[in-house]
Amino acid sequence: MSHPFATIWSDAFKTPPNYPPHPPIQRRGNMIKVTVWNEFHHEKTQEPVRKIYPEGIHECIAGFLRKDEEITVRTAVFDMPEHGLTEDVLSDTDVLVFWNHMLQDEFSDEVAERVKRHVQAGMGLVVLHSGHYSKIMRLLMGTSMTLRWRHGDRERLFVTCPSHPIAQGVPAWIDIPEEEMYGEYFDIPKPDDVVFTGWFAGGEVFRSGCTFTRGLGKIFYFQPGHEEYPIYHMPEIQQIISNAVHWCAPFRRLDAPLDNVAVNPSIEEEYRE
Amino acid sequence: MSHPFATIWSDAFKTPPNYPPHPPIQRRGNMIKVTVWNEFHHEKTQEPVRKIYPEGIHECIAGFLRKDEEITVRTAVFDMPEHGLTEDVLSDTDVLVFWNHMLQDEFSDEVAERVKRHVQAGMGLVVLHSGHYSKIMRLLMGTSMTLRWRHGDRERLFVTCPSHPIAQGVPAWIDIPEEEMYGEYFDIPKPDDVVFTGWFAGGEVFRSGCTFTRGLGKIFYFQPGHEEYPIYHMPEIQQIISNAVHWCAPFRRLDAPLDNVAVNPSIEEEYRE
Amino acid sequence: MSHPFATIWSDAFKTPPNYPPHPPIQRRGNMIKVTVWNEFHHEKTQEPVRKIYPEGIHECIAGFLRKDEEITVRTAVFDMPEHGLTEDVLSDTDVLVFWNHMLQDEFSDEVAERVKRHVQAGMGLVVLHSGHYSKIMRLLMGTSMTLRWRHGDRERLFVTCPSHPIAQGVPAWIDIPEEEMYGEYFDIPKPDDVVFTGWFAGGEVFRSGCTFTRGLGKIFYFQPGHEEYPIYHMPEIQQIISNAVHWCAPFRRLDAPLDNVAVNPSIEEEYRE
Amino acid sequence: MSHPFATIWSDAFKTPPNYPPHPPIQRRGNMIKVTVWNEFHHEKTQEPVRKIYPEGIHECIAGFLRKDEEITVRTAVFDMPEHGLTEDVLSDTDVLVFWNHMLQDEFSDEVAERVKRHVQAGMGLVVLHSGHYSKIMRLLMGTSMTLRWRHGDRERLFVTCPSHPIAQGVPAWIDIPEEEMYGEYFDIPKPDDVVFTGWFAGGEVFRSGCTFTRGLGKIFYFQPGHEEYPIYHMPEIQQIISNAVHWCAPFRRLDAPLDNVAVNPSIEEEYRE
Repeated sequence: MSHPFATIWSDAFKTPPNYPPHPPIQRRGNMIKVTVWNEFHHEKTQEPVRKIYPEGIHECIAGFLRKDEEITVRTAVFDMPEHGLTEDVLSDTDVLVFWNHMLQDEFSDEVAERVKRHVQAGMGLVVLHSGHYSKIMRLLMGTSMTLRWRHGDRERLFVTCPSHPIAQGVPAWIDIPEEEMYGEYFDIPKPDDVVFTGWFAGGEVFRSGCTFTRGLGKIFYFQPGHEEYPIYHMPEIQQIISNAVHWCAPFRRLDAPLDNVAVNPSIEEEYRE
Repeated sequence: MSHPFATIWSDAFKTPPNYPPHPPIQRRGNMIKVTVWNEFHHEKTQEPVRKIYPEGIHECIAGFLRKDEEITVRTAVFDMPEHGLTEDVLSDTDVLVFWNHMLQDEFSDEVAERVKRHVQAGMGLVVLHSGHYSKIMRLLMGTSMTLRWRHGDRERLFVTCPSHPIAQGVPAWIDIPEEEMYGEYFDIPKPDDVVFTGWFAGGEVFRSGCTFTRGLGKIFYFQPGHEEYPIYHMPEIQQIISNAVHWCAPFRRLDAPLDNVAVNPSIEEEYRE
Repeated sequence: MSHPFATIWSDAFKTPPNYPPHPPIQRRGNMIKVTVWNEFHHEKTQEPVRKIYPEGIHECIAGFLRKDEEITVRTAVFDMPEHGLTEDVLSDTDVLVFWNHMLQDEFSDEVAERVKRHVQAGMGLVVLHSGHYSKIMRLLMGTSMTLRWRHGDRERLFVTCPSHPIAQGVPAWIDIPEEEMYGEYFDIPKPDDVVFTGWFAGGEVFRSGCTFTRGLGKIFYFQPGHEEYPIYHMPEIQQIISNAVHWCAPFRRLDAPLDNVAVNPSIEEEYRE
Repeated sequence: MSHPFATIWSDAFKTPPNYPPHPPIQRRGNMIKVTVWNEFHHEKTQEPVRKIYPEGIHECIAGFLRKDEEITVRTAVFDMPEHGLTEDVLSDTDVLVFWNHMLQDEFSDEVAERVKRHVQAGMGLVVLHSGHYSKIMRLLMGTSMTLRWRHGDRERLFVTCPSHPIAQGVPAWIDIPEEEMYGEYFDIPKPDDVVFTGWFAGGEVFRSGCTFTRGLGKIFYFQPGHEEYPIYHMPEIQQIISNAVHWCAPFRRLDAPLDNVAVNPSIEEEYRE
């Protein structure tokens, strides 16, 4: 294979029976405010990671999202006060893109609760890679969020829900030449949709791209990109994350999650007046 | 109640706790070609129906959809050759909106199969009211599609999936002062989402707004509007149908449904070359 | 209506088209250890509640469950040390049936976490009425678990998933002459199945019987039984709770929730040896 | 690997963290009448297939099911009148187990419709391997039911829904040393549960064990066993098929699918009398 990040396009989708080229993605109509959050430690402590993401994973992701005219981007990292996820920042965020890895336990309980609250009130959430085990996801999902894992594998990502907006413009499968293996059983609640299913050369499968809804908030969990490989430089991966941002963007947003409400008089009493 | 089609806005969503006004719906980015299909018999044979829909239900629906700059509309009716749903028309249709009632058995088997094929290949489908029992829906769903029904009831439509795009701009519930009752048990496959659940004054409930996917095609079934009541003149109902058209519009469209494909060599053999 | 808890049987299911009488429920094969938990305060402080449940709601529920030869029952209440839900009790419990109401905030965080952990590891959970807002359910579901409510309504419970084991032996609908109204929007994750949907005379609908899975644990939330009405004395409600206990009983049970596991060598390396 | 059909047990499930041995499966309480249907042509025309299944695939499957005291079995094959699936046989069948391959088009339309009708009325259906493309499944599912395939691959079957009754007593994964590859995109409606996900050495993934419900009938599609390999001799595969029979067995069975029912007077009018 000549190019390390080439995509092998699907025969099934490309030729027989009659798969047309993916149409160009048009404008989608709404401006979206994105905050890209990154733990930002590996890039400072490991030379190989810094080579791949010299300004941090967040700047790589922010960079390709900024090319989308309908997206404005800010970034935040672990070392900022309140991890940069203050009440003001989250209130002004339509979609939070979240990458973390090693500092799961060190993450503030209070900030994790705050993010949960904003998701319940409508903020979109795109969780990448090890973020499956973030405090945020464990609070939102209610399962152990555990899985099996191994360094140094290779993944092929299959589209298993081709009509989903997050699969827009994405080929039938994508080869990721190097990736950390995440394998089943993945202890998650039943996803709304399994948009991508991963095949690993080491012999495993994984539900690599899953959607969930919590309150008014839409959530997309996406398993790729271990920090030691240039996965967020792949155009197909960028397309998926960009699609996810558009899909997660809320059209309803509350200031707080819904609360129990006593109703008196009844709807029928009001209606009959 | 002063206005017969007024909407009682939800206390839960409007005020405590902090429900903001529905934001205006912005442009959504893509042009959509819609074909509105109507049986168009009641309007010609029953004077009360003609009074409500003088040019037919199809023209009422086409009329409000045409106000959307991103939608172009054609119409078709039962009495046209091939019911107006020729290969050419369907190939040029992104979303088919379908209303029928009495002529379920008389509908062409061949045309029903053709519509099914186009849905499987990606065409969106919005099925209204008695269309639950159309040959098209029975072919696509695989269940009996049966229900309990009664003339002369009153419905309240609750949003039970407020983050769904089809609920965009729609209040927490909508009162429909007169409606034919459709009641559970409704024999459908488990829907992807139950966006609306109906309450009937006569004592029944119904899954009144359901989404399904078949192949690359998205389907929305929406229980309102019996032909004897001016339900498609209600702005909230128009908003829902318009939202559904946008949601069902495909971004992938094949010329034919997918077929079984023999794969040789394997992906791995190709990849390793 | 002569009898206050009579059930109106469904015409749709009973006669045309050919609905047979519900077959008797046979043995289901496994012994199940149930713990019935009750807040047990209303019964001590309010005379009308004591009249309905003189020994407490827990003893009423334990009483009808004990008639099932495949079930053994213990009970526990709020005022016991650790609310009676110690590590030993939960480890020896296949299914926990849980009723609470007023002391949501006073419930121990530690015990709530312990119950969550046991559910993730396989313990079944049947949550009744106000338990939707228990700390346990909020931890397991990840949404606000809020709803709209009102005293003094009447409910009709429809079976909306008749093939589900929890609907076994249950008629098409059940009338509950007096019930506290719980209405949509009910802020829950999408249920695996909505087995029962409630209609309220006051004009509301509710997803009154919902299943969820978290880890290896099965969960059934069931909206009926406000303490001021003798709802748990109704044979149909007893049948549903008994069915739910059988459905929630685990066949796999871990000592703890699953954990992340590093895999080395890979499955393929092991397989090829 | 010493034994060609050995199972590599999951480390994740077996040891850390604390996975207990699968408990023995107890009696499940109900007698089930099973009809095992087989095309039964390969076994007569191809010597290698006859060697593996000397009396036909149906007799192999019937053989291990007969060891279950709660199951009684009859068999039927393509060459019988009406393929052996007469009205009498189906009316007396709780669960139909169905294997076919080459004679998809030659299968009687009338019999396919009859099977569909019985499933809608409550008969359970276990569809094996190429049965995905049977007329029966295409009628029941409403999608193209197509996939990608290739001879001569190897499969590893992962449990992706360990709390499902069909996964009872099944290890975390099962190795099938030789199998025909079936790969995504598999054009099915969203399954109720994906109990098993397949990994193929040739580089593909597949939703290999899926549940669906149509009307009152439960359906399990299970991708293994190509006729050239002794897959139905594997104890784990036998356990899964046996579990599926128990899971699909109906507790409600109509004589015919449900029909539309006019309701008059309303439930409320009846209730208030």
